[in-house]
Order: sequence, then C-alpha cells, then structure tokens
Amino acid sequence: MLNFYTIRWDDGGVEILDQTRLPEREVYSRLTDYREIVEAIKSLRVRGAPLIGIAGAYAVVLASEQCRNKVEFAIAVNEIKSARPTAVNLSWAVERMLINYHAYAELPDRTERLLETARQIHSEDARMCEQIGINGVGLMPATGAVLTHCNAGALATGGSGTALSVVYHAQSSGKRLKVYACETRPVMQGARLSAWELAREGVDVTVITDNMAGYLMSLGKIDCVILGADRIAINYDVANKIGTYSLAVLAKEHGIPFFVAAPTSTFDNRMASGVDIVIEQRDSDEVARCGGKQLVPDSVKVFNPAFDITPHDLISAIITDQQVIKCGRWSD
Amino acid sequence: MLNFYTIRWDDGGVEILDQTRLPEREVYSRLTDYREIVEAIKSLRVRGAPLIGIAGAYAVVLASEQCRNKVEFAIAVNEIKSARPTAVNLSWAVERMLINYHAYAELPDRTERLLETARQIHSEDARMCEQIGINGVGLMPATGAVLTHCNAGALATGGSGTALSVVYHAQSSGKRLKVYACETRPVMQGARLSAWELAREGVDVTVITDNMAGYLMSLGKIDCVILGADRIAINYDVANKIGTYSLAVLAKEHGIPFFVAAPTSTFDNRMASGVDIVIEQRDSDEVARCGGKQLVPDSVKVFNPAFDITPHDLISAIITDQQVIKCGRWSD
Repeated sequence: MLNFYTIRWDDGGVEILDQTRLPEREVYSRLTDYREIVEAIKSLRVRGAPLIGIAGAYAVVLASEQCRNKVEFAIAVNEIKSARPTAVNLSWAVERMLINYHAYAELPDRTERLLETARQIHSEDARMCEQIGINGVGLMPATGAVLTHCNAGALATGGSGTALSVVYHAQSSGKRLKVYACETRPVMQGARLSAWELAREGVDVTVITDNMAGYLMSLGKIDCVILGADRIAINYDVANKIGTYSLAVLAKEHGIPFFVAAPTSTFDNRMASGVDIVIEQRDSDEVARCGGKQLVPDSVKVFNPAFDITPHDLISAIITDQQVIKCGRWSD
Repeated sequence: MLNFYTIRWDDGGVEILDQTRLPEREVYSRLTDYREIVEAIKSLRVRGAPLIGIAGAYAVVLASEQCRNKVEFAIAVNEIKSARPTAVNLSWAVERMLINYHAYAELPDRTERLLETARQIHSEDARMCEQIGINGVGLMPATGAVLTHCNAGALATGGSGTALSVVYHAQSSGKRLKVYACETRPVMQGARLSAWELAREGVDVTVITDNMAGYLMSLGKIDCVILGADRIAINYDVANKIGTYSLAVLAKEHGIPFFVAAPTSTFDNRMASGVDIVIEQRDSDEVARCGGKQLVPDSVKVFNPAFDITPHDLISAIITDQQVIKCGRWSD
C-alpha cells in the first residue's frame, strides 16, 4: 500500500501531488478549473502517460461543469487532449469521456455520470498496474540488478506503476532486486521521482547519469532493463522518454533483456509503426538551465525532443495488464 | 588565433581561466602556491587531460621554490601527481619535470631551468594540438554533422584542443561542419565548455543531453563522432569521459565512424589494456545537486565514475600529433 497519492478527486476538484517539487517537497495542489489541469500537464506537475490520461478525464468533468455550451466544451476538450502530444493515454481517456458526454449531454446529472467514468478510468488504471506487476514478476531475476529510465512508477499512474510495479511485485514475492535509476535528463524524472518512490518503498536504488548505463552494462552489473511507454504502435515499436532507444541498443550489445511495461491503453491502433508517432519538442530552457544555473551559453542552440522511438526488434517483451507480448529479442 | 587562454605563467605564478565559472563568467585567477594548483585540478577549475599536465608542470616549479628540502619537495610532487588519477598527462608531465629537477637540484638557477621545462611542455602541447588538427582534417566530411562529448577543445589544452582542433582546422579549410555537443553529465563540460568555445570560434553548435545521441544517430543526423582521451593503453583501448563507451557502441550500431584525438603524451605504455586503467570515482554531489537544486533524494545512493573504457575494436582511428592510427572499426 503506497503512502502517497498522485491524484485524487475530492469535492468538485482534484488534488494532485506536484511532481516538479519532488524530491525536495511533497506538495499537494487543489485544482478546480480544467485549465489548471491543462497547465499542470504541460508543466509536468502531473506527468507519466497513464496519469495524464486520468488527469485529462477529471479535466473533462470540470470542463463539463464550467462550459456554458457545447461549443465552449468542444474547445475545452480540444485543449485538454492536446496538452501533450506523445502519450496516447491522454487522448484515449478524453475520447472515452467524450463518448459518455454525448450519451449523457441532456441529462441533469451529466457531471456525476462523467465523474463516474473518470473514477472508473482511475480505478481501472490502478488495477492494470497490479496486473502488470503480476504478469512481469516471472521475467525478473531472483537476485540481480535492474536498470530503469525516467519514471514508470506509481508517480506515473493512478496505482503502483508500470515498470516499477513489476519491481515492487518482485520484491514482495521475495526476489532481491537492486535498481539503477538513470537520472533522465533534462527533467530528471529518474533521479527525482523513481529514486524517491523506490526508496520510499524500501527498494535498494542507486542513481546514475544517463551516460553511465553502457559502462555499467560493460561491467556486467545489469541483469535486465525495464521501463515504460508513452505510445505503442501496431508493430510494437515503442515511443518512450528520450534515451530509451540508446538503452535498447546498449542492452542488445550486451545481451541484456529489454522489457517495456505498459497498460493496454498505451497501444495505438492508428499507428502502423513508430515513424507515425509525433515526438514532442520541448522548450530549450529545460536543457539550458538547472536550479537557476545557466548550463548552456545564451548564443547556443539546444535540441530537446522529449521522446524517442525504439523499434520492436530491440525489445525482448512488452508486459501489459493482459499478457506478455514477445518481441524481436525474446529468444536472444 | 584564440581570444582567450586557459593557463599562462606570469611573474612567479600562473593565471588560469576558472572553468567552473563558464559559461556565465570568464574569470581568471592567479595561483602562486602549488597547493592552489592541486586544488584547482581537483575542483575542475583547470581540467582536460593535456591542460592538467601543463598545470602540474607549473605546480612543480612553484613547489621547487616553496619547499625547504627534498623531503618536502617529494611530498609536494606526490600531491601534484595524484591530484587526479585517470589522465596520464599529469603524471607524464610531473615525471618529466622530476627528471630535470634531479639534474638541476644543486644549481642556483634550478627554478628558472624548471620553468623552462614547464614552458616547453606548454608550447609543445600547443604545437601538438595544431598537428592533431592538421592530421584529422582529412577524416572529416566536407559537409555534415559531427558529434562530440565532454570538452576536448582549446579549454582542455594549452593550444587549440584535440578533437575540436580537428573541427577548427576543418572549418578553416572550407569544410562546413555542424557540431552536436553532448552536454556531458554530471559536470556539463559539453554544454558549458565545448559549446562556449565552439560558438566563440564561429562554429555552428547545438547542445543535446547525453541520452539524445542514439536518437539523433537513428535519424541519420550524425556523420561522425570525434572526442578526446585521458589515457590510451598499449592495445589502443581508450579511457575518456564517462559516456564515451555508450557513444562508441551507438556509433557502431549506426555505422558511423568513431574518432579519438589525443596527443602522444596520452599514451601509457605501462597499461597493456583498458582494464588496467584506474577509473576515478568522484563525489556524489556532482550528480545529486545542480545550481543549488537537489536532484536526488538524500537517502539515495549515487554512482559517479568520471571515466569509462572504450575498447579499441569500437574505434575507427586515433588521431595523434604524429599519425592517424587505424583501429578496429577502420574498414567499417
């Protein structure tokens, strides 16, 4: 049982754990306007593919209360859906809310019914997290070290996480795992968030800079890689946090299994392959400044894609709430 | 002609450009005690394998003035030599100074003679930089993008740099190169230093986080990798800034040439292969904090090796001041 929460509906609004303040402070904010949720998603106060789906669903509930007519509502929904482009869970959740909105639009208890759907999306996510954990345990070594990237943990979901749910389940089942968390530049979700929640759950965790992963593998210190996904194409190409692709190439070079863990809602059956997936480009200041310190000279350009694409042939398996999907490197 | 300098002997002491203050401020400090030079090397105010060799040589000059007897001097020399363990240039320069010290020890103008040797090490380094640049130009594409890591530039040497000297010479010879500089966590020598000097010399430079290199290669945006070395073993295994090994694996995966540029003083004929090279472990705060911001929770461990080893079979060629040494990937 986690002793924190990432998002919670409470009396006409949501309480969110502000992830930009971690690990220094555990601050919860109350948001009662859908625009505040959109801002929270854009600014990464709420992040993680499954969690921004849940936040988007609650935002639709608020929008349905706030908007005076269907035109206003349509504009609001579009704003919510496009808060971030790469994770499919956001548009998936918003579209599911929309179907219900159209069914309930004329009913007086429309908002309560929408809230029920949002709560359902939230509780389903928690259940999917549990199931991913259960499905993945068998793939983890009995003793050994796991490398993870970004935060595919409880903080990215409405439950116990995706990749880290597998780690938590392995630990409860008596396996002895050590986790290396790549810090995950530029926003440091690995250092700030994965390290925070793993330590809080009593898991042995060590932070490394992203560029140390290959060296650790060459020393024989990594037994497998497990991380999350923001969108998965029909051919099982995976969009995930920038750096995932490099880790997949390094894992192949060292013969280390490479696992992706994600709920079914991460699959996008409109994308034939990874090349179809839109990669979000974020502000250069994320790279150029840190803690008030200037890291890059003012006159110099910065490239800042938030995600990359890992082709299915570099993946051993995708662990979902429903099954373990064997990919190109399964029989390595 | 560069319009800044990294180190300069002036009237009984050295002036150094404090590299920890870049890119925000260009601050020169005057050091007149050998212990100040040792501190400057340890704290990375002066860094880069060739440059810490030069700084170490000047430190020996100061020590010879300061120490009252041979025992004190021996202690001082040991302190200088062990300021940082991985770059061979430091111990190479100090040992060369020692040979002269023993030859001149009884002479009244001992210090002047030692200073002459230190100045020689300095000017030889500048000449080697030029020669590396000349030797490497032919390996650069006529037009294209070069990826570099850390800072193997003018700021790392007493001249125009090693890897970046090749870039500067290619640019003067009419080649049109764009440079991607990996930021180089944790100390950010790529973002802060390479970007600063490349921009200052009019080279088109873009900074990326280290974890973006593989993605850029997969997009076909990188034509070659060129970087420096801190120590090269007899079999041509290379110790260089952490992250170099990962870049070498990624370059191989994408069929991109991988070049190392280093002066002859970087070769260590006491090391049969890379496994013999001592890797410096640095303080965890370099990773855990940035600009006053806490990036890793207090309770969490950090692994912080400053260098890694790249086996010779992942290298296309080593460009020295004397020759281009073809390595394992030459004929790829």
